[in-house]
Amino acid sequence: MDADWKTLDAVAIAQAIRHRKIKATDIITATLTQIEAENPSRNCFTTITKEAAQKQAQAIHRNIEQGSPLGILTGVPFAVKNSFDIAGVTTLAGAKINAENPPATADATAIARLKQGGAILVGALNMDEYAYGFVTENSHYGVTPNPHDASCIAGGSSGASAAAVASGLVPIALGSDTNGSVRVPAALCGVYGLKPTYGRLSRAGTVLLSDSLDQIGIFARSVRDLATVMDLLQGEDITDPVSTKHPPEPCLPQLNLGIRDVRVAVADGYFASGATPEALAVVEELARVLGTSERITLPESDRARAAAYLITASEGASQHLANLKSRPQDFDPATRDRFLAGALIPSQWYHQAQRFRSWYRDRLREVFQNFDIILAPTTPCVAPKIGQKTVNIDGKVMSVRPNLGRFTQPLSFVGLPVLSVPIYPSGSLPLGVQIITSPYNEALLLRLASVLEREGIISITI
Amino acid sequence: MDADWKTLDAVAIAQAIRHRKIKATDIITATLTQIEAENPSRNCFTTITKEAAQKQAQAIHRNIEQGSPLGILTGVPFAVKNSFDIAGVTTLAGAKINAENPPATADATAIARLKQGGAILVGALNMDEYAYGFVTENSHYGVTPNPHDASCIAGGSSGASAAAVASGLVPIALGSDTNGSVRVPAALCGVYGLKPTYGRLSRAGTVLLSDSLDQIGIFARSVRDLATVMDLLQGEDITDPVSTKHPPEPCLPQLNLGIRDVRVAVADGYFASGATPEALAVVEELARVLGTSERITLPESDRARAAAYLITASEGASQHLANLKSRPQDFDPATRDRFLAGALIPSQWYHQAQRFRSWYRDRLREVFQNFDIILAPTTPCVAPKIGQKTVNIDGKVMSVRPNLGRFTQPLSFVGLPVLSVPIYPSGSLPLGVQIITSPYNEALLLRLASVLEREGIISITI
Repeated sequence: MDADWKTLDAVAIAQAIRHRKIKATDIITATLTQIEAENPSRNCFTTITKEAAQKQAQAIHRNIEQGSPLGILTGVPFAVKNSFDIAGVTTLAGAKINAENPPATADATAIARLKQGGAILVGALNMDEYAYGFVTENSHYGVTPNPHDASCIAGGSSGASAAAVASGLVPIALGSDTNGSVRVPAALCGVYGLKPTYGRLSRAGTVLLSDSLDQIGIFARSVRDLATVMDLLQGEDITDPVSTKHPPEPCLPQLNLGIRDVRVAVADGYFASGATPEALAVVEELARVLGTSERITLPESDRARAAAYLITASEGASQHLANLKSRPQDFDPATRDRFLAGALIPSQWYHQAQRFRSWYRDRLREVFQNFDIILAPTTPCVAPKIGQKTVNIDGKVMSVRPNLGRFTQPLSFVGLPVLSVPIYPSGSLPLGVQIITSPYNEALLLRLASVLEREGIISITI
Repeated sequence: MDADWKTLDAVAIAQAIRHRKIKATDIITATLTQIEAENPSRNCFTTITKEAAQKQAQAIHRNIEQGSPLGILTGVPFAVKNSFDIAGVTTLAGAKINAENPPATADATAIARLKQGGAILVGALNMDEYAYGFVTENSHYGVTPNPHDASCIAGGSSGASAAAVASGLVPIALGSDTNGSVRVPAALCGVYGLKPTYGRLSRAGTVLLSDSLDQIGIFARSVRDLATVMDLLQGEDITDPVSTKHPPEPCLPQLNLGIRDVRVAVADGYFASGATPEALAVVEELARVLGTSERITLPESDRARAAAYLITASEGASQHLANLKSRPQDFDPATRDRFLAGALIPSQWYHQAQRFRSWYRDRLREVFQNFDIILAPTTPCVAPKIGQKTVNIDGKVMSVRPNLGRFTQPLSFVGLPVLSVPIYPSGSLPLGVQIITSPYNEALLLRLASVLEREGIISITI
């Protein structure tokens, strides 16, 4: 087996297995060996589903020997944020409290669908407690360091999902995004992070932070991997009341359609301030490559962020109200205060935030009458140091934790699909650019990213 | 013109006009004359759109002369609750405060669609302030008395919509139903009142009480009128974000399909207590006619009612927060206290109510796996006296105002379509029976009512 197999993307691994260039069992053994060797320092996995993964690999191997039909991701290892139910495993959701729960009795829908596509689950990944954070500095399960600089954070809340993909432990991973929890760690770790349209992918069997905001998302190192996973995951799920009946429109077949006549603009105003020069420069560089000098203002985006905060805190607290009352000391200090504050929010604030949300959604709908794609930074800066409290941006000292989501929050607030694409400025940690489009237009995001990938604008370093 | 024209239903009027047995202008003149003569005592209309109605009637008359294509409700007079926008008229929503607003610039979608079908709007109808009540004893615009006994209430909040149809002023009227505001007055006034599935009919251009509960509804004196209006009104409206994309399924063509193999049950427990013997007897009589002795328990319906209260108060207050703060004295005393209480509700109570709502919705979905139709009383008693504060039921003294919605609230809480059918017990004021079905199954409600109507079980007295 080639020593470089861990730089292969999921589609390449599946092809190698299908064409018998490599055995599914060998891939899984190598993956598990690597995870066991590296996890003590990387702190990505909170559970390694070794036995189940080996069994599944053996079954796939038999299927190949017997010439049975194979899924598109046959033999590809993947992992999930530990807020996803795995049959037989307790769903931690980053919380000490949840460690007391019995094991889940069934896989989350997303896991089940990837397994149906032949992919092999190898474990569950660290996160901020209850997905309420942008740093993955978890007081119960430890910090997940950034694969590019172990003194820096990986971002969060799906921090270990991004780090596991960025460090080559798995080619694909799942996470969830409420206010940026897929996009922020994807940017800081230098991988792709796709947050689809709210409601497009089933959340059944995952622990929610904020019911009206949460969407599961995908981490990968290639655009075709994103498209492949997206196609496996999409489609209505009657066990998820939020899952939409939008007819599944496969993304993979559209990848090579190009982006002629696609109207691209850069978000200005709010999205062009409060960031380091290099975070803004990568957006400008992408705009230059795409040949656009258009600018668009998304009005009142600061209020959109404030409203998203309020809704998250209020809905988030409602998921944990009994424990907040009876055992607040068992929460991570990083989430406890915000949950308690959220528990005290009057319903009128909540309604006002929801009403503003409708207004903001209408304004963004108008924007997409004139443009197909909007570009914005993913984070205001590269990965801060572990434990770092503040960052100096534009001569202003800003708090790290909340401001990492400054550019992601207003977009998930109205459920838009967003792809954070990784850019590696020379001599710097990676950064991300958000490619934003209108609801259910994920295929366009992937087409555009595919062009950038083909032209070498995006090239991921492991 | 036959003196009995006012007992004709809408379809019969349209047929008479189309076949030139009567002129649209004559119908409108007679209607307006009757309204002007009777309204001082009936207090149904707060606005009579005389000039516009006459103009529209003349235009229709010309169309008939010219042989132009005619709508299915050509020349039929109708009226709407004064919470519906009428171009050129200030939308009162039963409030003194709203009388200061400028005239609406466009008709509500529902009005526009009925006009497209040839119907002629003759005015706007009295209601409880901001639709928050079951009595239509409005402190600003007066009481609307019951057409069958002027010392009694018409019910509410769409009280004058029911009364106008019951007294023969118009064959059809529109109202809205949050917790029973179509069904309660329909029952007390002895007409049909249809509350369709939440989201099925556009609410665009109407004043809301509670965003997550409100649905517009239809009053009529015949089932075919309900079906005809339903078909004109249904279909997505992009100006209403709540309007569903459910493909419109015409109801009128299904009216005569009968009800063979339809599984009917009577709701017991909560729905068989807290009502007068005669209110329960009309349900049993209907069950007997339909040949069912099945009983079904809708679990935790008292909690469903409590949760509906809480959501209504919280969402309702959010519609009026600025005025509640700055000018509470200008609200109707009957709504003020509840709105103020709603303004103080913590968001956690609201979330808990919404979470229970999902649970209750799932339980009712299970019920509809075993039954197609559920029967329940509409109100716990016949129309109380105007000003009456309490009613003695089952030996218990109950407050009139809240308890009129006791049986309607748990059903609208989860958006079910419900038709209140009128029953006239001998020697008593009319009562209603709720015919309840699963979402988007309005056609079945109308089929069943059509059978009852044909067999003479339902026969409306004007």
